[in-house]
Amino acid sequence: MRKFECIDDNMLIGGVRAIDLAEEYGTPVYVTDEDAVRENYRAIYGAFSRRMPTRINYACKANANLAILRILEQEGSCIDAVSIGEVEACLRAGFSPERILYTGVNVSNHELAQLVNRNITINIDSLSQLERLAEITSGARISFRMNPEVGAGHHEKVVTGARSTKFGVPRDRIMDAYERAIELDFQPIGLHVHIGAGVQVVEPFAKATDVLVSVAQELESKLGLQLEFIDIGGGIGIPYRPDDSPMDLELLAEEVTSRIKNGTSASKVVLEPGRYIIADTTVLLTTVVDLKETPDRWFAGVDAGFNTLVRPAFYGSYHHVAVANKFGRPGEVTYDVVGPICESGDHLAKDRLLPRLEEGDLLAVYDAGAYGSTMSSQYNMRPKCREVLVRRGSSNLIRERETIDDLLRHDRIPSRLML
Amino acid sequence: MRKFECIDDNMLIGGVRAIDLAEEYGTPVYVTDEDAVRENYRAIYGAFSRRMPTRINYACKANANLAILRILEQEGSCIDAVSIGEVEACLRAGFSPERILYTGVNVSNHELAQLVNRNITINIDSLSQLERLAEITSGARISFRMNPEVGAGHHEKVVTGARSTKFGVPRDRIMDAYERAIELDFQPIGLHVHIGAGVQVVEPFAKATDVLVSVAQELESKLGLQLEFIDIGGGIGIPYRPDDSPMDLELLAEEVTSRIKNGTSASKVVLEPGRYIIADTTVLLTTVVDLKETPDRWFAGVDAGFNTLVRPAFYGSYHHVAVANKFGRPGEVTYDVVGPICESGDHLAKDRLLPRLEEGDLLAVYDAGAYGSTMSSQYNMRPKCREVLVRRGSSNLIRERETIDDLLRHDRIPSRLML
Repeated sequence: MRKFECIDDNMLIGGVRAIDLAEEYGTPVYVTDEDAVRENYRAIYGAFSRRMPTRINYACKANANLAILRILEQEGSCIDAVSIGEVEACLRAGFSPERILYTGVNVSNHELAQLVNRNITINIDSLSQLERLAEITSGARISFRMNPEVGAGHHEKVVTGARSTKFGVPRDRIMDAYERAIELDFQPIGLHVHIGAGVQVVEPFAKATDVLVSVAQELESKLGLQLEFIDIGGGIGIPYRPDDSPMDLELLAEEVTSRIKNGTSASKVVLEPGRYIIADTTVLLTTVVDLKETPDRWFAGVDAGFNTLVRPAFYGSYHHVAVANKFGRPGEVTYDVVGPICESGDHLAKDRLLPRLEEGDLLAVYDAGAYGSTMSSQYNMRPKCREVLVRRGSSNLIRERETIDDLLRHDRIPSRLML
Repeated sequence: MRKFECIDDNMLIGGVRAIDLAEEYGTPVYVTDEDAVRENYRAIYGAFSRRMPTRINYACKANANLAILRILEQEGSCIDAVSIGEVEACLRAGFSPERILYTGVNVSNHELAQLVNRNITINIDSLSQLERLAEITSGARISFRMNPEVGAGHHEKVVTGARSTKFGVPRDRIMDAYERAIELDFQPIGLHVHIGAGVQVVEPFAKATDVLVSVAQELESKLGLQLEFIDIGGGIGIPYRPDDSPMDLELLAEEVTSRIKNGTSASKVVLEPGRYIIADTTVLLTTVVDLKETPDRWFAGVDAGFNTLVRPAFYGSYHHVAVANKFGRPGEVTYDVVGPICESGDHLAKDRLLPRLEEGDLLAVYDAGAYGSTMSSQYNMRPKCREVLVRRGSSNLIRERETIDDLLRHDRIPSRLML
């Protein structure tokens, strides 16, 4: 968990007082520290690139705000995109097509055609997709996503590498897939797996790399195919709880790169961190609007709900909460932090010992940079909130607040109903 | 479960072939049958109004498309709104302010002021909200939401009436709340509870009505207060599975109204159906784009995911699925129906015996009218889909498809990052 500075009981984010940000931009608001983004990128790129040539494909599903993408473009990152929308966002943020690898699942022919038009390399998820792509183009550089039958993750909803999931070419069909790709005149240049999300330990990555290496060896011996890259996917977790340990990046890099270097002739390792780069750079600031004492518990009612941050309601995720204007003060009362959405599942945090709250206090929800804004909705007809970038004491708006007009502008009333 | 007509293996919705709708509007697309909306409204209004004066406050959180709201305005419905956004949508759809009752939770002072400006009656959720409202206005007609300590529902996330939830004034504080409201010069005219969502049996409603009646009696004896309305809230479930039984509306109406008539002098019963009115009027049409056979199971990959319909992923909800272009054909193969979102939790249906599928087949996901579009997101940067209204053989677009531009139009890149 990232440490934040404190001045006179006030939390500072990127050198700016949280209460000043709330005052200027209103709440709820996502606040991202630019330096933290750069620092995280450099840490993971550095650990791997010191050992072998490395390409970081930032998994922009975690956070595709154009300003965040610009920062990572400047850092030299490449992109893991999962939809034509993400591809478009990255092109607009300045990424050239060759810096984007597309890995979709259940991709329509229409989307495949759009990807081909934009010269995006496609990491193929299924034999169906291969055949359908061949009807649109030929000669293209491609790779395959394989199901490694190694799954892991913070919640069953995100364990993508297990044998029973929808993702990738099954292990026992992967040689057929490459053979067929060559037959169809594609140029296979890579092999990819993705085991899951929020993985805190090295072992599943090492296991998945073993599978990748053995397939790469088989490709070389049976088809004479030398891969340019081996892509171990994403899924590196972060310490959401105060007592969680961070991933040992050096150990991870060593275990993965040594296997690839010793076992294959692949020239490059690719990895797809999203959460690892962006989660802890961002806090969600939300105001306490209503305090309620019930026979069972105390509720701190805030202005952000699962429309704004769905992870606690969707996955049961833990996000650390602090009181930004009583920062560092000892806990006194145990609260559930709950939002304005009309479902009892609408909570941001449960059973948190916090300093005694008053209406108007400002809460900071930690590690909200990944799967925060991108998974937000307009449920209960609540417009999405602002996003702000801070850097060394100053701030910029990086996403405007939506309006109610924005939510209604696509609706149409047939004229016969206007009578 | 609503029955749909079939002609030559083709499903008809409101007299239009599903495949013609998919051809004209693309997929995924939500399709609502106008006559079904009117029929459902009349069924529930009729069951209660035959017994005592009744007001239906349609819970528009279930579906707030402006065309749907127009239909219900024409039918004479009133509105249960939970946000200023919903209030605005209803005003634009032609509802007068007095036909809207606002029931929010953790409502900000800003939102309270907007409600007062628009002359919306507020159903107060907490003592905090009462005091904060008194700082903005006085003399207003108000009601209270009480926690009845009777909870029920299809998933723990929606059991709103249990003692441990964030909703309503606790039972043991409700008399204080009315006394304080009178002291603050408000006019209390109603009493409200909401027990949960997706309740299929009468008993919890009868129990909640008993609590309402006993509080109404206490209000009359202790404070001399005669309520205009008693509001039993929403939560009436529907039969999502083929073998589920529908709620017995006549029994429900009898049990609720007899208690209110015999036990209180309230002149009106209010109820807040959302799902009951809109769920079964709408199917989600989605195209099979990718078929995948794995060692464990067969996947039918479609172009709608939990971005489009989140209920299966969020609550584990069952939605019935049929093949709209092989309608009524016997099942042959067991499929998981999965979407384009990059999480293994992204499924619409599991273990469904369907006619053998081919790519290009059209699936109909039933009962998608409630908490479908309103809970949808743009996750993975996928724009929201179209919505269509059908009526007796013809169709109208009622919501335009979003574009990628729509998703990016609020993002801002600080100039220093453009270097």
